[in-house]
Amino acid sequence: MAEELQDIEETAERDEDAYVLDRQAVARIMYAVDISDQALLWGELDPLHPADIADLLEQINAFDRRRLIELYGHEFDGDVLTELDESIREEVISILRPEVLAEAVRELESDDVVDLVEDLEEGQAAAILEVLEDSDRTLVEQSLTYPEYSAGRLMQREVVMAPEHWNVGEAIDFIRNQEDLPDQFYHVTLVDPRLKPVGNVTLGKLMSSRREVMLSSIVEETFHVIPVAQDEGDVAYAFNQYHLISAPVVDENERLVGVITIDDAMAVLDEEHEEDILRLAGVSEEGSLSDRVIDTTKRRFPWLAVNLVTAIFASLVIAQFEAAIAQIVALAVLMPIVASMGGNAGTQSLTVAVRAIATKDLTGSNVWRFIRREVLVGLVNGVIFAVVMGIVGVLWFGGPELGYVIGAAMVINMVMAGLAGTVIPVMLERMGIDPALASGAFVTTVTDVVGFFAFLGLAAMVLL
Amino acid sequence: MAEELQDIEETAERDEDAYVLDRQAVARIMYAVDISDQALLWGELDPLHPADIADLLEQINAFDRRRLIELYGHEFDGDVLTELDESIREEVISILRPEVLAEAVRELESDDVVDLVEDLEEGQAAAILEVLEDSDRTLVEQSLTYPEYSAGRLMQREVVMAPEHWNVGEAIDFIRNQEDLPDQFYHVTLVDPRLKPVGNVTLGKLMSSRREVMLSSIVEETFHVIPVAQDEGDVAYAFNQYHLISAPVVDENERLVGVITIDDAMAVLDEEHEEDILRLAGVSEEGSLSDRVIDTTKRRFPWLAVNLVTAIFASLVIAQFEAAIAQIVALAVLMPIVASMGGNAGTQSLTVAVRAIATKDLTGSNVWRFIRREVLVGLVNGVIFAVVMGIVGVLWFGGPELGYVIGAAMVINMVMAGLAGTVIPVMLERMGIDPALASGAFVTTVTDVVGFFAFLGLAAMVLL
Repeated sequence: MAEELQDIEETAERDEDAYVLDRQAVARIMYAVDISDQALLWGELDPLHPADIADLLEQINAFDRRRLIELYGHEFDGDVLTELDESIREEVISILRPEVLAEAVRELESDDVVDLVEDLEEGQAAAILEVLEDSDRTLVEQSLTYPEYSAGRLMQREVVMAPEHWNVGEAIDFIRNQEDLPDQFYHVTLVDPRLKPVGNVTLGKLMSSRREVMLSSIVEETFHVIPVAQDEGDVAYAFNQYHLISAPVVDENERLVGVITIDDAMAVLDEEHEEDILRLAGVSEEGSLSDRVIDTTKRRFPWLAVNLVTAIFASLVIAQFEAAIAQIVALAVLMPIVASMGGNAGTQSLTVAVRAIATKDLTGSNVWRFIRREVLVGLVNGVIFAVVMGIVGVLWFGGPELGYVIGAAMVINMVMAGLAGTVIPVMLERMGIDPALASGAFVTTVTDVVGFFAFLGLAAMVLL
Repeated sequence: MAEELQDIEETAERDEDAYVLDRQAVARIMYAVDISDQALLWGELDPLHPADIADLLEQINAFDRRRLIELYGHEFDGDVLTELDESIREEVISILRPEVLAEAVRELESDDVVDLVEDLEEGQAAAILEVLEDSDRTLVEQSLTYPEYSAGRLMQREVVMAPEHWNVGEAIDFIRNQEDLPDQFYHVTLVDPRLKPVGNVTLGKLMSSRREVMLSSIVEETFHVIPVAQDEGDVAYAFNQYHLISAPVVDENERLVGVITIDDAMAVLDEEHEEDILRLAGVSEEGSLSDRVIDTTKRRFPWLAVNLVTAIFASLVIAQFEAAIAQIVALAVLMPIVASMGGNAGTQSLTVAVRAIATKDLTGSNVWRFIRREVLVGLVNGVIFAVVMGIVGVLWFGGPELGYVIGAAMVINMVMAGLAGTVIPVMLERMGIDPALASGAFVTTVTDVVGFFAFLGLAAMVLL
């Protein structure tokens, strides 16, 4: 028994930097690779969780990766493949010997195979489907017929269900006599004669209730059914909002077709966040840290190109006031301050709006109140910074007029920042465009153009 | 039975905007409030999940909120309080009549009461603790002795455990005879005689195994123990990384003191993401959409103040080149382009770095490779945009020299952007400062200063 317990994959205690792969472990593993000592490598990798092995493979370079995988040989675990970043997965699969790959894939649950196959190029996907047993391959191919990023791709096909008229004893006997239960399940789903799910009973409740109690009398208070075509982001939202542990998935006829569990929903929530945070910074579809320079350059390029166009547009505004700048060079010195403050205030409003849209806190019921608040916040902060900059302007360049001008421009631009930072993401959302993706460029264009125009325009009127 | 099933809180189907509270429902609810029809209000709110009622309270204004809560009366559900944003929670609690509050709080699990009390001001917290039964109050007060944002605050105190030498039959009999099981539990935790957790058995495995099977032979392969003082962000990371459903929490003597379940970890993951995304935009500790203008203004102010200082600093750089600008006004027109492109490229690198640090993908093993990649990406994109801007410069202002200058400045600034965007967050992280919080200001200062200095400095050398 003691031995069996030791077989547990224990994740090492790493107090200072919890859960960061420590450099010494990585060094020991690479030493094993360097001296081609397979037993030593297995000994080092065996206690690691597949997710940690995947992280390790992502963190070393391509040359070391190939050597490690070749030395790892048939001990390679299929779960490592599902944990790997997509960008590295194809590389790793192409290194694995066919028989190692086949064995690794056969160990996996159907939803993990779907997750693996859907991102691969066709040749590799076909190779993986080929090694599956017929019944498993059918399940995987069925799942692949659902749209990408839908509940259908996320769900497990294996469901533990019971007729709604059963009692606790019948359900317990059924489960104890089942041969082929899913690895992980937390509820028994009650279904009506048409296979429509009508309630969930937790295993804990089932085990602690008397045998003659009707299942329908101990269903969970919160019960949530997910349509198979629902977007996976909405699925993740529902799990987080309603504290679901697992939820039945139904087809268009409301028939039970699968179940989604919270661990998959949590992974989706994490991916959606990653997408939001990167898109807000103008980094779309970032692969992974181990991507090559050329791939990363291509990914970063489009957003920078958009920014160049908007920056040139802002410069055209400045160009209208060349005469004013030629007379008062201080304008050129001060103008970036107005634009920069507007850009920052706009980004603040924008980010709050994008996040609130993602968490469904910003809705038709409160959108006008939100916009009004952000504009007022822009106004108040604008007035404060107008006073500060007015004083700075006077002290730096003498003469109160320049102070008035920069102060007034500051107020105008920060009010516009609050307005653009809220209205633009809301409008993009209504048009079906992800506000995280495109809002940034629009908002900073507005604050740049308004900032330069208000400051230089007022200066031309007042000072010349 | 049919009736019991109907009692389930079913979340309405809302296909187009899944999970957004629909405006008509909000309108009906507010109509009930307007005509003070308590039965109608109860009828509308009864089918809603507490999380949705909390969202509703957050989305209406303070005046409506007070009227709704007063009309809602003793039907008010304690779970609504735990779902509310902190900023509104105190307001709602102060509106609730003492006997309604008492009843609402007594329904809650101990970890929810902890979650509720820890953010309240002292008077309200004491009032809530007072209405609890003695045993519950002791549990809550014990939890409050653990540091904020630690595993100790997050865990449930009620654990289902079994001695490691039991077999399946003993565990099942024990559970079936327990009076006071937690509402939700998914594992039986095996403990040694000193109460050290040594393994988890899922309820599904327990139910499907023969009675004479030893528990220790059916423990889960992945087993993860959480120290009670661990930061909640690391707890959430562990759940996501290792696909945990629940994990035992141990004190400094490795004794089992509680259990954390994945739904709480998912909520933490969501909060941590919110914090990251807002901090990157210079919005720290945002309350909620329903905060007043004055509170929001105060929260946004510090970051804008920092930005003003850095913007003035960048302006001081420009001021050094007043003579050059006075001679060639085109410099003033073009200089924001160089700074803007650098700022965007820097934000891209920075965001990728901050995210990679948060997901523990950027470590000592690959940090130099990452920095090198980002610098090279800056170089390649810099060269491309240098060529573009060089041509634009020539076409716009004639003369190739201005094109050379802006192209060279572009390359310099985008390389610096890649360098600053990676080195600054990594250094802040090593110094124990959240890189999401402070990196933005530093990186844009670098790209502004370098952008203006490189462009104007080169121009002064080449063109004058």
